[in-house]
Amino acid sequence: MPEMRKDPIRDEWVIIATDQGLKPRDFPINKQGVQIAGSQATCPFCEGNEAMTTPEIAAYRDECTRPNHPGWLVRTVSNKFSPFKLQGDFHLDRSGLYTSHNGLGQHEVVIETPLHGLQMHQFSLDNLELVYRMLRDRYCALAADHRVKYIQIYKNRGLFAGASIEHSHSQVLALPMLPLLHRGIGEYYYRQGRCLLCDIIDQEQRDGVRIVYENPSYLIFCPYASRFSYETWIVPKKHQEHFGFLSDEEIADLASAIHTFLPVLVESLGDPSYNLVINSSPVNLPGVAGYHSFLEINPRLMVQNGMEMSCGYFINPVAPEYAAEALRQSLQDRSVVAAG
Amino acid sequence: MPEMRKDPIRDEWVIIATDQGLKPRDFPINKQGVQIAGSQATCPFCEGNEAMTTPEIAAYRDECTRPNHPGWLVRTVSNKFSPFKLQGDFHLDRSGLYTSHNGLGQHEVVIETPLHGLQMHQFSLDNLELVYRMLRDRYCALAADHRVKYIQIYKNRGLFAGASIEHSHSQVLALPMLPLLHRGIGEYYYRQGRCLLCDIIDQEQRDGVRIVYENPSYLIFCPYASRFSYETWIVPKKHQEHFGFLSDEEIADLASAIHTFLPVLVESLGDPSYNLVINSSPVNLPGVAGYHSFLEINPRLMVQNGMEMSCGYFINPVAPEYAAEALRQSLQDRSVVAAG
Repeated sequence: MPEMRKDPIRDEWVIIATDQGLKPRDFPINKQGVQIAGSQATCPFCEGNEAMTTPEIAAYRDECTRPNHPGWLVRTVSNKFSPFKLQGDFHLDRSGLYTSHNGLGQHEVVIETPLHGLQMHQFSLDNLELVYRMLRDRYCALAADHRVKYIQIYKNRGLFAGASIEHSHSQVLALPMLPLLHRGIGEYYYRQGRCLLCDIIDQEQRDGVRIVYENPSYLIFCPYASRFSYETWIVPKKHQEHFGFLSDEEIADLASAIHTFLPVLVESLGDPSYNLVINSSPVNLPGVAGYHSFLEINPRLMVQNGMEMSCGYFINPVAPEYAAEALRQSLQDRSVVAAG
Repeated sequence: MPEMRKDPIRDEWVIIATDQGLKPRDFPINKQGVQIAGSQATCPFCEGNEAMTTPEIAAYRDECTRPNHPGWLVRTVSNKFSPFKLQGDFHLDRSGLYTSHNGLGQHEVVIETPLHGLQMHQFSLDNLELVYRMLRDRYCALAADHRVKYIQIYKNRGLFAGASIEHSHSQVLALPMLPLLHRGIGEYYYRQGRCLLCDIIDQEQRDGVRIVYENPSYLIFCPYASRFSYETWIVPKKHQEHFGFLSDEEIADLASAIHTFLPVLVESLGDPSYNLVINSSPVNLPGVAGYHSFLEINPRLMVQNGMEMSCGYFINPVAPEYAAEALRQSLQDRSVVAAG
C-alpha cells in the first residue's frame, strides 16, 4: 500500500511507494548511455497505441471517433505508475515518532498531441489552447471531490527535468493535503491583507529590470530570487486564485503568451530540459486566502547538488536581471526576423 | 557582488551570483553527450597540478614537502567558483518586497586523494581517516569565526549528484545563517526536552526493519521517510551536537563504518551518483539545542521532477524497509565472500 510519510526532522512529507520496490539496478539513470524511452512503435502516448495506456478519462477528439481509439487531439489517462488512488477516506497512522497517511489522491497524464516528435514549443496556438483547456477542465473535475485539497499541474520535459517519456505530456496530481512551499503567500495576506503576487506584479513593473514580456493579461518575468538559471514566471495580471477559474478567453490569452515566449526560451537555451508548473490555490479548504495562480518555467540546466538537497539553499549562477535582459533580446531578435 | 536573496513566496533563501552571468549556452548539461570534466592532465585536483587551484589552506603532506607542491595526501583549497567571501560584516538590504544579504561565507574544497581515478568507496581505511580528520579540522577552523553560523559538509559524486569534477573531493561551506530544513529537531527539543535523533535511534533499534549495519559507535539505517531511494543515514549512537567535536578515536570509528558500508552501497547500486552530507549543529548561535550530528548518503538514482521541485514532496519508489533488507543482504554476501 503506498503511503505518505512525514520526515520528523524536515517536517515534510515524502511519498513512498511501499507496494513496489525497484531493485537496485532498475533505475534508468543508473546505466551507461542514458536515454529517455520511446520510439514511436513502443510509445504508449502515440496515436494508435491507446491500448497501452489506462482507459481514457477525457479527450478532445473528432466526432465519430470512439474513446480509446485514434482520432483525438488531447487525451487524459491516469498515470499507470502512480501510487495514488482516490479511494476511501484520508486517515493518519502513528507509530512512535513516525506519522503516515494513505496515498489518497489522483494522478493523471494529459497527452498533449498525438504526434510523437512534436514538442510544446513547436505547438500551434490552437494546440496550446486545447492543452490548457484540458488542464483547466481536469483541475475543475478533480477539485469537485471534497477529499482533494491541492492540485499540482506540472510538465517534465527532458531527462534533466525528470521526464521518463519523450512524447509531450503534462501531469495533474490531486493531493489530499497542502504543501508548505508557498507559505509566504498566506503569511503576507494575514499580515498585510493583500495578495503578495499582486504586489510583486506592481514592484516588477516599477523595477522593470526583470520583465521579459507583457501583454494585456499576462506578465512574464524572471523572479527576484530565481532558484533556477533563466527561471521565468507567467503571472496573470488579474488577481485569480484558481487556475480552474480561467475563462475560455483567458485560456486563449495564456496560450498566446506561451506561444510567443516558449519557443524563444527553448531556442535561447539550446533545447534544455525544463519543468512547467502551474501553481494555484488549495481547494476544499476554508480560510486559505491571498493565493494567486501563476505558472513557472524552470529550465534544468544544472543538477541540484548535495548542499542544495541538504540545506535547501539553491545556488543560481545567473542573476535574474541578466537572464531577463538576454531573453528580452532574444524575443526582440525573433520579432525582427519575423517582421523582416 | 554575489548575494543571498529571499524568495518571499517560499520564504527561503537563494544564493545568486550576481557578478557573473553564465550565458544561455554555457551550461554543461545543455549539450549532447554529457561528460564530467577531467582527464589527469587537465584535472586541477591531481598531484602535480597544484598551481591550477587557489592556494592551499591546509594539507596532510609528507614531511619535507612544501605547500602547493606534490607530496600531499589530503589537501584543502578554497572553491575557485564560489560566490562566497568571508570578508566584512553580515548586512541585510531591503527593496520593497525583497530582502537580500551579502554572500558572506567561505567555501572550501577538500581534495581527498592525489590519485585521479580512485573513488571514496575504494579508499583505504587510512585514507578515509585522513579525509574525515581534515573535514573535522576545517569545521573547527571555520566555526572559530563568529560570523559563521552553519557549516554544511557535502560530497557530490557523479553527474546526477551535481558533480562537475570527477576527481574525488568533498566541500565545506560556512554560511552566515541557519537553513530551515532541520526545523523538526529544534521543535522536538523544545516540546519534549529530548534529542529527536537519540529517540529515532531508539525507535529504529526497536523496529529493526530499517537497520542496515551497526557497530559499537554507529548505526546505519534507511530513514523512515527516505526522500531518495536507498537513502542511508550514518548516525553516531552517542549524542553529539557538532561534527567538529569528534575525537580521533571517533573519527576512526566513523571511517571504519564508511569503509565497511560504502563499497557495498556503491556495488549494489551499480556505481551510482550520490551525495554524502554531514549535518551538524549551528555554531555561534545561542539557544539552538537538541541537534545531533549525522551523515546522510543519498543515491541520486532519479532526477527530481516538476512536482518535487514545486510542491517539495519527494516521490520515492523504494520503501526504506525494502532498501534496508537489500543492503543488509549485500553486506552479508560480501562478508561471506571475504570469509570464504
